[in-house]
Amino acid sequence: MKRVLIEELKENEEVKISGFIEKIRDTKYMVFIILRDISGTIQVSIDKATKPELVEALEGVIAESVIAITGVMVKSEYVKQGGREFLPNTIEVLSKAEALPIDETASIDTRMDYRWLDLRSEKNQLIFKVQTALINGMRNFLINNNFLEIHTPKLIATASESGSDVFEVKYFDRLAYLAQSPQFYKQMAMASGLERIFEVGPAFRAENSNTNRHTTEFTSFDLEFSYINDFTEVMDMEEALIIAGLEEVKKLYGEKIKEIFGLEVIVPTKPFPRIKLNDLYQELNKRYNYQVPEYDIGDMNAEAEKLTARYAMEEYGHEFIFVTDFAKTKRAFYHMRKDDIPQGYDLIWRGTEITTGAQREHRFDILAKQAKEKGLGKDVEFYLQFFKYGCPPHGGFAIGVDRLTMLLLGLPSLKETMFLFRGPNRLTP
Amino acid sequence: MKRVLIEELKENEEVKISGFIEKIRDTKYMVFIILRDISGTIQVSIDKATKPELVEALEGVIAESVIAITGVMVKSEYVKQGGREFLPNTIEVLSKAEALPIDETASIDTRMDYRWLDLRSEKNQLIFKVQTALINGMRNFLINNNFLEIHTPKLIATASESGSDVFEVKYFDRLAYLAQSPQFYKQMAMASGLERIFEVGPAFRAENSNTNRHTTEFTSFDLEFSYINDFTEVMDMEEALIIAGLEEVKKLYGEKIKEIFGLEVIVPTKPFPRIKLNDLYQELNKRYNYQVPEYDIGDMNAEAEKLTARYAMEEYGHEFIFVTDFAKTKRAFYHMRKDDIPQGYDLIWRGTEITTGAQREHRFDILAKQAKEKGLGKDVEFYLQFFKYGCPPHGGFAIGVDRLTMLLLGLPSLKETMFLFRGPNRLTP
Repeated sequence: MKRVLIEELKENEEVKISGFIEKIRDTKYMVFIILRDISGTIQVSIDKATKPELVEALEGVIAESVIAITGVMVKSEYVKQGGREFLPNTIEVLSKAEALPIDETASIDTRMDYRWLDLRSEKNQLIFKVQTALINGMRNFLINNNFLEIHTPKLIATASESGSDVFEVKYFDRLAYLAQSPQFYKQMAMASGLERIFEVGPAFRAENSNTNRHTTEFTSFDLEFSYINDFTEVMDMEEALIIAGLEEVKKLYGEKIKEIFGLEVIVPTKPFPRIKLNDLYQELNKRYNYQVPEYDIGDMNAEAEKLTARYAMEEYGHEFIFVTDFAKTKRAFYHMRKDDIPQGYDLIWRGTEITTGAQREHRFDILAKQAKEKGLGKDVEFYLQFFKYGCPPHGGFAIGVDRLTMLLLGLPSLKETMFLFRGPNRLTP
Repeated sequence: MKRVLIEELKENEEVKISGFIEKIRDTKYMVFIILRDISGTIQVSIDKATKPELVEALEGVIAESVIAITGVMVKSEYVKQGGREFLPNTIEVLSKAEALPIDETASIDTRMDYRWLDLRSEKNQLIFKVQTALINGMRNFLINNNFLEIHTPKLIATASESGSDVFEVKYFDRLAYLAQSPQFYKQMAMASGLERIFEVGPAFRAENSNTNRHTTEFTSFDLEFSYINDFTEVMDMEEALIIAGLEEVKKLYGEKIKEIFGLEVIVPTKPFPRIKLNDLYQELNKRYNYQVPEYDIGDMNAEAEKLTARYAMEEYGHEFIFVTDFAKTKRAFYHMRKDDIPQGYDLIWRGTEITTGAQREHRFDILAKQAKEKGLGKDVEFYLQFFKYGCPPHGGFAIGVDRLTMLLLGLPSLKETMFLFRGPNRLTP
C-alpha cells in the first residue's frame, strides 16, 4: 500500500501512514498514539477489544519508535488533533527506540550532542524547509537571469585573501589551505568570460571564537557578474535576489512561520534605501545621540548596525538598508575605488550586516597597486594573473545562508540554523 | 545604453554589446573585429575613412582585450559570421590584454595552469552551461518531490567510513578530517525525521593517484529518503532523477551539444534494465568470452563495466543498466542485507559506474554487527548512535557531478569538466 503524508490524508480512504510515535498512551479501553511525520501529526486510536493484535504489536514500543500503520482517517469532533483521527487496521514496527537521553529542558550544548533528536521538532524541521525554499527561490531567480552555477575548489595552495584564520590541510608532502571564500575564483570566472556565475557551498574560518555569530564552517551563497557600469547595479541585483528568495518563503511557509515563530515574512519593496556612511553617522548622532568610536570611523560596528536598522525603519519603513562609501582602509584591496572611495556597500537587515558587495577592480595595474598597499604579496600573485589578459568589469557579493536563515526566523544563534554546527569546541556529531 | 547579448541582437536597433576580441584584423580600408560574449560571436566592421576615432580607440588593443561597442546589427550576405555584422558608433576599451601565454597547441597541464584562459572557448563554456542545466533539472525534480536541501559539515572529527585516504586538518589544538562523503550525515537526517534530503557539495579523497578519473576534490550530488519498502524504490528514484536532468539538458542544449561535441543527448526510457551480478557475468561470458578475475568475483572492474554497457545496448537498446546482488564482502557495512545479499546496486552509464545506491541498514543491532564484521570500531561509534532512538527505513545514493558531465559530453578526463581540477600535483590556480 502506498504511503501517504499525514497532511494529505483524505476521509475514509484506506492508506498507509508512517512516522515517529510522538506520544503513546494506554488507557482502559483504548491505546492512543500521536503519530508524527514531516508534514504533521494525527491521533491514532486503537480499540483494545476489537484490535488485540495491534495492541500486541505495540508491546514494548515507546515514544520515538517508528511505525507504519494502515487504516482510514475519519473526522471526529472529540479529537483535539485537528478534529481527525486515524483508525488502524495493521501496525508494523519499523524501528524500536530506546528511552531518549534528552528532553525539552536540555541545554543548547546537549541538544547539539544529540542533534538528530533535536531536529525532530516541528520548529526545527520548519527551519530547513524554509532554508530550502529561500535558497531555491534565490537560485531559480539567478538561473532565469542567465547565471551559471560553478563549484570552486575548497582546497587551495595559498592562505587566501586575509592570510590569517585559515585552516591548514596536510596535502601529501606539502600543505594546502581551506578556502575562506570563493572570492578569487568567482573573479577568475569573470576573466574566463563566464559573465554571470553563482555558487552555494561551504566556507571555512579558523577563528577561535565561541559566540552565537561565529562558526568555523558555514554555507556561503556567492555570486559575481560582468559588464556592470557601477556598483549600484550590484545593489540592484541583490535587491531582486533577496525579494525572489523571500517571496518563495512567504508563499510556501508564510503562515506556518507566523504560527510557529510568531514572525511576519516581509517581502521588501524596491529600491531598498541607500545611504552614505558619513550621512548615516550624522543621522544616528542626531536621532540617537550615537558617537562612532575613533577606531570604527569609516566602518561600522555591531551597535551602529542595530541603530542603522532602526533608522531605516523609522525613516523609510524598510527592513533593509544599503550603506555605501566606507573608508578604503576598511575595505578589501579588490574593491574598485573612485575618487579614493571604495565602490561597494554593506547591506543591513534586522540590525545585522548580511552582505558586503562591490564593484571589483578589474584593471591589473591598479589592482596590483592596491594589493601592495595592503601589504599583500606572494599569496595574491596567482590571483593578479587573472587580470592580465583581458577581464570585463564586474561586481558581486556573498550572503551567509545560515545567518540569513537565523535573521529570517528570529533565531538567537547560528547553532539553531545549521544542520550541524561547527565551532572551535564542536566537531561532533 | 543597455547591454544586449550577441545572440539576442535585432536588426537595425541601436544597442551596446560587450565582450572579448576573438580576432582583430586591420586591412587597407577596414578594421574587422570578431567579438565574443557568453552567447556567441559577431563580426564588427569599422570603416576607417568615416570612423577614424574608433580606429584610434583601438590603438594597441590586441586579441582577448575586452571592449564595449554601441551600434547596430545589420544583415549582410557577405559576412560568414552568421550573415550578420555590427556597425559601431562608439568603442570603449574596458580591459587591455597582454599577449596570451598559451595557444591551442598547449598541453592539458599548461591549459590547467592558465585555466581562466582555457575556459574562454565556446566548447568549455558549453560544459558549464550543460552542467548548470543538468544539476538544475535534477534539483528541481527533487524539490518538486518534497526533498529538503541540507548542507552537512565537511570538517569532521573522525576519519569517516573508510578510514584511509582522508585529509587531515589542523583544527586548533587537535586534528579534524575532511569528509569523503556526506553518507553518515545524510543518514542522520533520516534519523532526524527529515524524510527526504539532498545535498550538492564538495567531497574530498586523499588518493595519491594521477589518472583521468581521480581527483582529490569533487562535487557530489547526494540524496537519501525514508519509508522505502526495498531498494528497488531507490533505483526508481534514480531513474526519474536522471531523466529529469537529461531532459533539461536536451531541451536547452541538445542541438548545441550535437554541434560542438558531435553527441546525441539521449533521454533514457523507464525502467532501466536491471540484472543480478551473477547473471550478468554469465551473459558477458557467453557473449564476449569474459572471465571475471578471481579477486573481482562479487564485484565489477573497469573492463566488466565497459562490457556491461555494451550488453545493455545490445540486449535492451539502453544506455543505462542497474547491476544488483554484489557480494557483501565488496559492499559497505551500512548496506542492508537480505539472505546475506546487499540490498543495493551499481548504475552503469556509457561504460562507467556512476552510482552506488542501496537500502541502508537502519536497525541498530544489525548495523553494529555489520560494522564490527568489517573491523570498524571507534570511528563509527558516533554514527551508530543515530540508530538507537528510532530511525525509519531508508535508502539513497550519490552521483559525481563532474563524472556525470564528463560522460554526458564524451570528455576524456575529469580535468576538462571541473572548473578547477585538484589532484596530488595540482592545487593551482
